[in-house]
Amino acid sequence: MIREAVIVGAGLGSRLKDMTKDRPKGFLELDGMYLVEMSVRKLIEHGIERIIIGTGYCSEWYDELAKKYPAIETVHNANYAGTGSMGTLEVCAPLVRGDFLLLESDLVYDSIALFTLINDHHRNVILGSGATKSGDEVYIAVDDKLEVSTISKKLEMVGNPYAELVGISKLSRKTLDAMCSFAASHHHAIPKMEYEAALVGAQLMGEHLFVRKVEYLAWREIDDASHLEMATKHILPRIQENESLRQVRREVLLNPGPATTTDSVKYAQVCPDICPREEEFGAMMRWLCDELTDFVGSREEYETVLFAGSGTLADEVMVSSCVPQNGRLLVINNGSYGQRMAKIASVYHLDYEVFESSTYEAIDLNKLKKRLESGRFTHLAAVYHETTTGLLNPIPQIGRMCHDMGIVTIIDTVSAFAAISIDMKRDCIDFMASTSNKCIQGMAGACFVFCNRKELEKLKDEPMRTYYMNLYDQYKYFSKTLQTRFTPPVQVLNALRQAIIETKQETIEARYARYTACWEILVEAVQELGLEMLVAKPIQSHLITAILEPQNDTYSFEEFHDLARERGFTIYPGKLGNINTFRIANIGDIQPEEMDWFTAFMKEYFLT
Amino acid sequence: MIREAVIVGAGLGSRLKDMTKDRPKGFLELDGMYLVEMSVRKLIEHGIERIIIGTGYCSEWYDELAKKYPAIETVHNANYAGTGSMGTLEVCAPLVRGDFLLLESDLVYDSIALFTLINDHHRNVILGSGATKSGDEVYIAVDDKLEVSTISKKLEMVGNPYAELVGISKLSRKTLDAMCSFAASHHHAIPKMEYEAALVGAQLMGEHLFVRKVEYLAWREIDDASHLEMATKHILPRIQENESLRQVRREVLLNPGPATTTDSVKYAQVCPDICPREEEFGAMMRWLCDELTDFVGSREEYETVLFAGSGTLADEVMVSSCVPQNGRLLVINNGSYGQRMAKIASVYHLDYEVFESSTYEAIDLNKLKKRLESGRFTHLAAVYHETTTGLLNPIPQIGRMCHDMGIVTIIDTVSAFAAISIDMKRDCIDFMASTSNKCIQGMAGACFVFCNRKELEKLKDEPMRTYYMNLYDQYKYFSKTLQTRFTPPVQVLNALRQAIIETKQETIEARYARYTACWEILVEAVQELGLEMLVAKPIQSHLITAILEPQNDTYSFEEFHDLARERGFTIYPGKLGNINTFRIANIGDIQPEEMDWFTAFMKEYFLT
Repeated sequence: MIREAVIVGAGLGSRLKDMTKDRPKGFLELDGMYLVEMSVRKLIEHGIERIIIGTGYCSEWYDELAKKYPAIETVHNANYAGTGSMGTLEVCAPLVRGDFLLLESDLVYDSIALFTLINDHHRNVILGSGATKSGDEVYIAVDDKLEVSTISKKLEMVGNPYAELVGISKLSRKTLDAMCSFAASHHHAIPKMEYEAALVGAQLMGEHLFVRKVEYLAWREIDDASHLEMATKHILPRIQENESLRQVRREVLLNPGPATTTDSVKYAQVCPDICPREEEFGAMMRWLCDELTDFVGSREEYETVLFAGSGTLADEVMVSSCVPQNGRLLVINNGSYGQRMAKIASVYHLDYEVFESSTYEAIDLNKLKKRLESGRFTHLAAVYHETTTGLLNPIPQIGRMCHDMGIVTIIDTVSAFAAISIDMKRDCIDFMASTSNKCIQGMAGACFVFCNRKELEKLKDEPMRTYYMNLYDQYKYFSKTLQTRFTPPVQVLNALRQAIIETKQETIEARYARYTACWEILVEAVQELGLEMLVAKPIQSHLITAILEPQNDTYSFEEFHDLARERGFTIYPGKLGNINTFRIANIGDIQPEEMDWFTAFMKEYFLT
Repeated sequence: MIREAVIVGAGLGSRLKDMTKDRPKGFLELDGMYLVEMSVRKLIEHGIERIIIGTGYCSEWYDELAKKYPAIETVHNANYAGTGSMGTLEVCAPLVRGDFLLLESDLVYDSIALFTLINDHHRNVILGSGATKSGDEVYIAVDDKLEVSTISKKLEMVGNPYAELVGISKLSRKTLDAMCSFAASHHHAIPKMEYEAALVGAQLMGEHLFVRKVEYLAWREIDDASHLEMATKHILPRIQENESLRQVRREVLLNPGPATTTDSVKYAQVCPDICPREEEFGAMMRWLCDELTDFVGSREEYETVLFAGSGTLADEVMVSSCVPQNGRLLVINNGSYGQRMAKIASVYHLDYEVFESSTYEAIDLNKLKKRLESGRFTHLAAVYHETTTGLLNPIPQIGRMCHDMGIVTIIDTVSAFAAISIDMKRDCIDFMASTSNKCIQGMAGACFVFCNRKELEKLKDEPMRTYYMNLYDQYKYFSKTLQTRFTPPVQVLNALRQAIIETKQETIEARYARYTACWEILVEAVQELGLEMLVAKPIQSHLITAILEPQNDTYSFEEFHDLARERGFTIYPGKLGNINTFRIANIGDIQPEEMDWFTAFMKEYFLT
């Protein structure tokens, strides 16, 4: 798995003259976007977690970009004027942890190039193309195994070139070491060494570097003004068409999950087959657990445990695993999901009671406190955000109350996690369940339980109530082996990895702000239409809104739904026995402008 | 979802002269394959279940092709010489059930064309391209909404053409009706109507037909010898490169599942986001259940119930749901998976006993019979194929024995289903569990229980032992609503659909023959190397082989594993406490030649 990229961006770009007087080459604009920013986005979309940029000339441009993309780490080559691209790569090298992609900064390319390199079975692969006739070709010659023999701008040096160098390579950490050692031993002789020379040097030192030639690749290096014009007129349209052909039809899901996903999350499912018991996959799952934990607490105190199944499975894992034999559970029921947890408690014949509360009004905390005090409860189960109604329960207050009484908290955060900022310690949550397919914006099929390690360890000697859903065993087995007890949903977890990368890029705070912006557009339209919301605004989650159905003959949910679907929006019926509602969720990869379009449709439907 | 395609293949192809003297145009060869066969394969890879081919001239060629591809249905246009392509489409029309792709027979094209049309948000889409300069262009003109206004070979009729017609369209059933009705009312005036004219006719009748233009699409219609030459030299290399760029690195999994999958199964995961509670997705799940049932029994007597989770979850569903309160279970334990079922029975405190049998010898049926007779058992649980060892248990005999004694059978067929031909009625299996990721060759994340409906209905009033894993509730809720109780793994189910299509194409019998051919290659090498197999050949499954580890210092499983992995093969350790084995599975999308490569490596490893 390739997780890192290095971009060498220190160069002066002197041939571009006026165009790079104030900026590095990577900041030339094509179709309104910086070259290097286009590249950074494509890298993130292809699962690259860390992008190390070696800067030099006008480095502040890159530092500015790094503020927008948390995946970027810049490192400055102070002697950029005195070194070539290899000097910059040497400065980056200490930050590189494993196999990586190496890119030049001034490229525009079809993103299939990244997929192809990442997918190639060789560890070291240099991307080549057919003839570009750009006037600034770097030629590659190969031997009969397609290993690099020469790289040069001088055709006479190369003889019969096999391909042109694109400027994107996949390299192993070991090969990078060889390149650096080759460069170090030639600093004096070749102070301005380019990385291509070091590649050939590494090959001479015994590294195997293969060339993957893509004859018809749409790409261009921008070295002068004529390249920029050529790229704008002839290359970019081809790249844009190719990439648009791979795009998936956009459907905006306004149902309360599974939520809309990005294309990059969808494509993350397309990966080489792997046995999930391989070390590499174990390391990936370890990464998933750690990164999920990072969103809500410290790795020392908290741990995430993965399961294959839906969010309800994670709820059942908690309820069936976390209440010990002599435990006594209070379940707060103010919607279908609270009710579901009570139902699960009853299936396992737990010693439990239900605290009933209105489905659309705030929980009476005093009443809850009294009930807790009077019942010798050891555990409390509640829902953070009731998907049924969009009601946000005051979990931090409830958590604190329980904490003060020594009660362990079991919280369903299925539709809250990754939207609402949760700090398990601050909010006194001991166990919480969520799923891969809602606000984390991955695919359905995996779920997870976040655990307070101390409380988790206490479950060690509890008899199992189910086999598959036993939390402690799943945790212990994974900790020991980096394998799940049973086959994990491999591709769903790969998609989850991409979803986590994108969540880190956006940040949970910004995601909540985006969701809230969408919700505000919705609420404004609802109020304008004179429709009533089930839950009062101050206690709404900003994630899901339950709207009372109009009491007239012209409205029909089915018709409303079907017309919305034709426009690309999926809405959802209510889920309350006695009150007729429909629900609009605004979670997932959706944008405020899409909510504008939806509310325009809503107005059209309800006003005509 | 587009599930059908129509290919109009009746034409004479008179311009190809000698080349089509004995065959339809679709049977011209490009790179050693018939044009139409290339197209058929691409359609199947893109999820097309039924391919209706309208034949005429030399129709026997198509009938022959249909024998190779069960997805093909041919229908003969007897009057092919007197009609145009629309006449052939009219003959096909009664067979078309829903929205479909319409293709000409003489095309070579980049398969991205199919993805693009299937993905397009319009229901009726005609594929157009940039200028081909083929000399036989059909031009399309559009209005400002990109709806078709004219289609014609005559440039003067079209004015300013927007695109060239490729000959692939996506059409709704309703539009087909309009085309047929337009054609019917013009039979007299235009006896040799082409389908393009009917498309324009349908547009005039109020249908909306959009054009999707792909400027740089690699494609060609083969109308004469020069086209064939051009296609061979210039078009096919581009198509092959484009398609190879989307290929996923091949890893041959010789571990006992998840198994190697086809690229088309991998890409089936990339689909528009959909709420699984939508009718359309419900219909898809209904199709999955029905098609899975068809592999093992009649839909009247048997039913398949889907869950999100691993194969073990399906085992736990059976053991926890199928043995009633007053039931008494005997579990056959001759490997880890039998042991696991016993463990599950113990977790739920079932009234059960374990019948212990050797992990590598055949079950003693007489002993089993005596045990069953002596124990007032109502249920028996066993594993069809022990993944631990590759031991095949004689389930048909055991089933018959149980049936005669009125004992309900619960069979783990996790690694047997879709490889071994199972007839639940003949083999007296009442419940059996399997997974999406082994011999059905889909992705991990879904599992299913096949049920004898009569026995399933008996579970109606049994109290639940778990909530998520309750079989009866899952069955009842889905039957009533076409929704699963909890979020299903949407993309994994889409991949399962493609896996089922490909299993139907191959047939389970042929798949078993392919697996057996791979196994024979393995066994021959094992014997040549003097290695010993744990299980005697006659009782092996042909699916997984447990091989005793050599007792010498030079062998190390880790080294063997790592070297194999470098060559693209993943192998697996054993799973028996007291006997050291490694395991080679030969399930999944693997070919005998790959097993040849693997055994060559094995010999290299063990002999040097």
